[in-house]
Amino acid sequence: MQVAIYFFICVDLSLALFEEPALFPLPFLATSIAEVLCLTAFFGRLVHFAKVTPQMVFWKDTKNICIMVTIVLTLFDLIIYGSLEAVNIHSIRWSRALRPVFLINFPESRQIRRTFRSIRNTLPDILYVFLLFVFSVLIFSLMALKLFGDRGLQTVEGLPYFTNILDIAFELYVLVTTANSPDVMMPAYNFNWWYSLYFITYIIINTYIFMSVFLAVVYNNYRKHLKNEIRKLAYLKRHKMIEAFNILKVKVGTEFVVTEARWKQLARIVMPHISGPHLELLLRISDEGQKGHVDKMNFIRLADLLNIQVVTINIKRHPLEDWMPRVYQSSASLLVQRMVRHRIFVWVYDVIILINAIFIALDEKNPFISYAEWLFLSLYIIEILLKLYTYEPRAYFGRKQFWNWFDTLIIIAALVATVANTTIQSARKYNSQQILDIVLILRILRLLRIIVSIQRFRLIVTTLINIGPTILTFGGLVLVVYYVFAIIGMEAFHGKVQFFDPNFTTPNALVCGNPALKDSAFARERYCKNNFNDLASSFIVLMELTVVNQWHVLAGGFALVTHQAAKLYFIGFHVVVVILIVNIFIAFILEAFFVAYSLEKSEVETAIEKKIQELGVGIQEEEMQDGKLVDNMDAKDGGFSGDNGDNKRKALKGLYFRIASKKYRTVDALLQQMFESEIAPEDEGPSLDEILNFSAGDVYPKNPNFENSA
Amino acid sequence: MQVAIYFFICVDLSLALFEEPALFPLPFLATSIAEVLCLTAFFGRLVHFAKVTPQMVFWKDTKNICIMVTIVLTLFDLIIYGSLEAVNIHSIRWSRALRPVFLINFPESRQIRRTFRSIRNTLPDILYVFLLFVFSVLIFSLMALKLFGDRGLQTVEGLPYFTNILDIAFELYVLVTTANSPDVMMPAYNFNWWYSLYFITYIIINTYIFMSVFLAVVYNNYRKHLKNEIRKLAYLKRHKMIEAFNILKVKVGTEFVVTEARWKQLARIVMPHISGPHLELLLRISDEGQKGHVDKMNFIRLADLLNIQVVTINIKRHPLEDWMPRVYQSSASLLVQRMVRHRIFVWVYDVIILINAIFIALDEKNPFISYAEWLFLSLYIIEILLKLYTYEPRAYFGRKQFWNWFDTLIIIAALVATVANTTIQSARKYNSQQILDIVLILRILRLLRIIVSIQRFRLIVTTLINIGPTILTFGGLVLVVYYVFAIIGMEAFHGKVQFFDPNFTTPNALVCGNPALKDSAFARERYCKNNFNDLASSFIVLMELTVVNQWHVLAGGFALVTHQAAKLYFIGFHVVVVILIVNIFIAFILEAFFVAYSLEKSEVETAIEKKIQELGVGIQEEEMQDGKLVDNMDAKDGGFSGDNGDNKRKALKGLYFRIASKKYRTVDALLQQMFESEIAPEDEGPSLDEILNFSAGDVYPKNPNFENSA
Repeated sequence: MQVAIYFFICVDLSLALFEEPALFPLPFLATSIAEVLCLTAFFGRLVHFAKVTPQMVFWKDTKNICIMVTIVLTLFDLIIYGSLEAVNIHSIRWSRALRPVFLINFPESRQIRRTFRSIRNTLPDILYVFLLFVFSVLIFSLMALKLFGDRGLQTVEGLPYFTNILDIAFELYVLVTTANSPDVMMPAYNFNWWYSLYFITYIIINTYIFMSVFLAVVYNNYRKHLKNEIRKLAYLKRHKMIEAFNILKVKVGTEFVVTEARWKQLARIVMPHISGPHLELLLRISDEGQKGHVDKMNFIRLADLLNIQVVTINIKRHPLEDWMPRVYQSSASLLVQRMVRHRIFVWVYDVIILINAIFIALDEKNPFISYAEWLFLSLYIIEILLKLYTYEPRAYFGRKQFWNWFDTLIIIAALVATVANTTIQSARKYNSQQILDIVLILRILRLLRIIVSIQRFRLIVTTLINIGPTILTFGGLVLVVYYVFAIIGMEAFHGKVQFFDPNFTTPNALVCGNPALKDSAFARERYCKNNFNDLASSFIVLMELTVVNQWHVLAGGFALVTHQAAKLYFIGFHVVVVILIVNIFIAFILEAFFVAYSLEKSEVETAIEKKIQELGVGIQEEEMQDGKLVDNMDAKDGGFSGDNGDNKRKALKGLYFRIASKKYRTVDALLQQMFESEIAPEDEGPSLDEILNFSAGDVYPKNPNFENSA
Repeated sequence: MQVAIYFFICVDLSLALFEEPALFPLPFLATSIAEVLCLTAFFGRLVHFAKVTPQMVFWKDTKNICIMVTIVLTLFDLIIYGSLEAVNIHSIRWSRALRPVFLINFPESRQIRRTFRSIRNTLPDILYVFLLFVFSVLIFSLMALKLFGDRGLQTVEGLPYFTNILDIAFELYVLVTTANSPDVMMPAYNFNWWYSLYFITYIIINTYIFMSVFLAVVYNNYRKHLKNEIRKLAYLKRHKMIEAFNILKVKVGTEFVVTEARWKQLARIVMPHISGPHLELLLRISDEGQKGHVDKMNFIRLADLLNIQVVTINIKRHPLEDWMPRVYQSSASLLVQRMVRHRIFVWVYDVIILINAIFIALDEKNPFISYAEWLFLSLYIIEILLKLYTYEPRAYFGRKQFWNWFDTLIIIAALVATVANTTIQSARKYNSQQILDIVLILRILRLLRIIVSIQRFRLIVTTLINIGPTILTFGGLVLVVYYVFAIIGMEAFHGKVQFFDPNFTTPNALVCGNPALKDSAFARERYCKNNFNDLASSFIVLMELTVVNQWHVLAGGFALVTHQAAKLYFIGFHVVVVILIVNIFIAFILEAFFVAYSLEKSEVETAIEKKIQELGVGIQEEEMQDGKLVDNMDAKDGGFSGDNGDNKRKALKGLYFRIASKKYRTVDALLQQMFESEIAPEDEGPSLDEILNFSAGDVYPKNPNFENSA
């Protein structure tokens, strides 16, 4: 069901590729039938919702209302456009800009919706700063008009300089984005040294201070609202756990508890694939005194305990050792293993990678160098084989051994690509450009292996990879905003600017097929391919606008071929994407880094680790990473130093545990932990109604003394 | 003494204005004599230091060693340069780049030194991120070389595209700063749509993610080290207060206390100008039970109590009321007063300001408009007079009434300037450009008054003004870095690029007097005035480099007139100023805003306010700002509702107190409060030695249970 809905959303969004102005044109009939199909699917999904949810809840949900309104509007637009098209009148398909509504409003895209909500909540605060900022720009524009307007100065292009208040305001807005610095200053600066002070003041106030304040406001609000939502979740979880406890509790002595059998039953229902030893471990933590039951405080931790990934490691000997113990344990073999485990082995391969980099930089037409390529490939393969010989293969390719997988996949991909390339070259005497490009890129990506061998680099990259999934949420957000702006841009600007082959030098090609662009910076810089003639080009233009540099040239070009008011489209894009979304992105990266810095380990994790250590079944993560795994296991294989019953010991025998590395799937998980560590364990939180009505204002509850348990 | 040292530092630094290449040339003899004089002064200061400090301490202080070494090096350089000059060999005055050492190392510039220390501490952490970033740029450069090197593509200028690995690395570094986007992408993008993906990937990884990570690392370290220093100060203060308590304490009953008389005596020594009622108020807070003595906990708060500015307001009637009570209290006069206090009065003046803005934007050559100017001026003056009629003048111009001062000063300045301008114009029939410019700017600055009447704007501006003093610290830091880079730049590039009047179109003027610049972007954009021919021009170029846009054009131009290695100077400047200093600046603004958001009032302030309210002598700040001051005072004039002894009441009679508005002189003060609220009141902190040896690592003391008092 979920997959089907995502499929239809994709189809609906990608229709923009086939509609006029199209990358792959299809007749209007085909695209409109596809669209109606998608709408039917969305409607069906909605009907399904209406059936499974109570009527009151369904109609109170703005999401559903939004979807319904959008479906009706789209149908309405389709009919009008179709009938006008039938009598050859070309109108605008405005409802296309509404399509991302489906992406946002289906319950599957909770993350994107949350980011949108966070942006909406930030708006009132940022509005006042923005107004003050606009006021400041206008004041400076007035000053510029009075100071420079009557001087008769000229820009480099020979145009009058700072004579019209609207032009000045636009130029100064561009200066805030730094895109026209220092050009906008040069005429005044050439005229008199002192006028540069005006621009320096302007830049300090508007570019540096105001833009930092925007970041501060966005960041502060983002953090506040995120924390509020996370707090809601944390309290909700605790609330549910207490409810569950109240259902399951029995009275033993003076206190209410949950019996061991019940507890195990529950854990198995929640997590069917949990291994016996793992469950045993968790029980030991929850039932510290081994009394045969779990008390309330420990019961509430159950969800957290289950959430922490504990890796169960079955210690196995190397298969070669089983197969031919004599050879594997021979002194020559042991020497090889010791060599591979030595630090110098890593260094030697680092040097090889560096030499490889130099060879790649040199011209590969030289036959000697292309032979060297094979040499390097075989050296890398030998490295991996040696490692597999030394370490237990199943441990080496363990689920959490990201860097080993990374290493091996890069080498295999390079090997396959090189072989394929050579085969094609020799068979057809033809140099396939695509395959050659891929081979080249894979060959260079191999150099990334050097990151693996430098601990600090690995740490930074791991942090970045950990926040990857949430960066994808931003991808979704950016996609929505880009899509809306691309549709508007295509309706407004398509066909106004044409791309010609860069070698054409006909007068028409030099002005991108539009005489209005004569002598413009847009034509001079040869930006003809930056147009809105199809969805792909539009996205690239929007990406260039996001990067900001030269955006005023693009804005100026499209204003020349349409109307000066077109600049509002570009200013609007800058405000929405650069001031809001990019700042939220930066805020997010900052927050993710700070949380990763400040939060080493949660309380629950520490409890599990302590127990693992107590039982003597722990393996340090560092030992795993340093490849000393097998050594350690041999040393510890003797027996446990535990003081527990024999039956327990048996259950754990032959197994080692390790907390899965401190990777968090999302920053949400990190933040949730951070907030939970702030709630006192006795605190049972406010009532359900209170939780659901949390507003951002009351992040710190003043009086959380509500008691709902006996 | 301090003023003299600052004077000599200024003279020493400003010598660069007079030395070759000079803004105001002076012979070498004159500048070298001035420099020797400065050095003598610095040496004298150092000798003075050595006398007043123990020898061990003096020689262990790196500051003093630095100054001595710099003095010796400068003398050495002066002698060599002078003797070479005598035989007409021109050498380099390299010691000039060392001059900022004096600015940094004299004890008066503690703030700048602390920022430098914070940067130095950040370096190791940022180094690894920077190395990884450089690695990433190099990997992408290799890819670009392989993908585009053999395609025979050309840039807009017709130069070969991406054929040399060093050029590619530079172009890609520039792309990280976004300065050459999208131009660097266009040739590849024109060739094939898919190659844009390479650039998009590059921008996402290097521009967005890496630059955010730099900000995160700088920010995190900045915060950590600042907090550590602040924490040291906070513990040191508490330590000293406990020592003082131990000296002054007497035993009363079972506990040690300080008697009231002693306490007052101490407060008067520390703060000689404290008013009697203020001291009485503080005593009431410290001696809650009025037992005649102050216990340890309350004694420790003394420094904080004295630090909080309490405004003592003497309620006085309006002088006019004293002078002619009949007229002032007449119904017409009361109507005027009610009118001025009404909200509509403010709105009417907001509308007047807006109309004024429109008039300014229009052409002022029109005589009608220049008459209107006088009308507006008189309207503003009438407003101020009306306000002074309604409110008590001494309250209106109170020390903390920033906005009233602001308002009045702007109007008076505009009045004076306009009158001066008219006088000059009519007397000499001559339009003085400088005075006209000032009049214009003052006329426009008047529009800033609209900020005063919008509460939210006033809040934002107040926050910005509060962090102003610390922004000046950054000014010092930037000055130091700019000075060093300017000296190096002048030695390397002076005279290479000449400025000609922009109307000159001789071939020589078009290439800025240097044939090497033919066909370069530098000459085409007419950047000839961006040169290193004197200190002022150098500073402007460096400012443009800080703003980043087009920095590669400047770098390319100066590389053409000297050597490609000159680009290293510009890259170095970018790394130091943009990646380090600007990020610290942003971190600072973010932190200042967060602290201002999160810290409403300190505990001590709240205690004082509570006591003020208890005694019924408080005035709300909002009431002050809304101009209802006098009304409120009338209402409360009756008497106190306090339940205290008569003598106490008399001491406070006729006075009102108010906590001075929540302005902090520096963010340090804010941070210090923030950290102090984290120390438990019982916590007496670690020992003095421990405090002085705090490192950044142990921001949260694990076991602060050391007891040094009885």
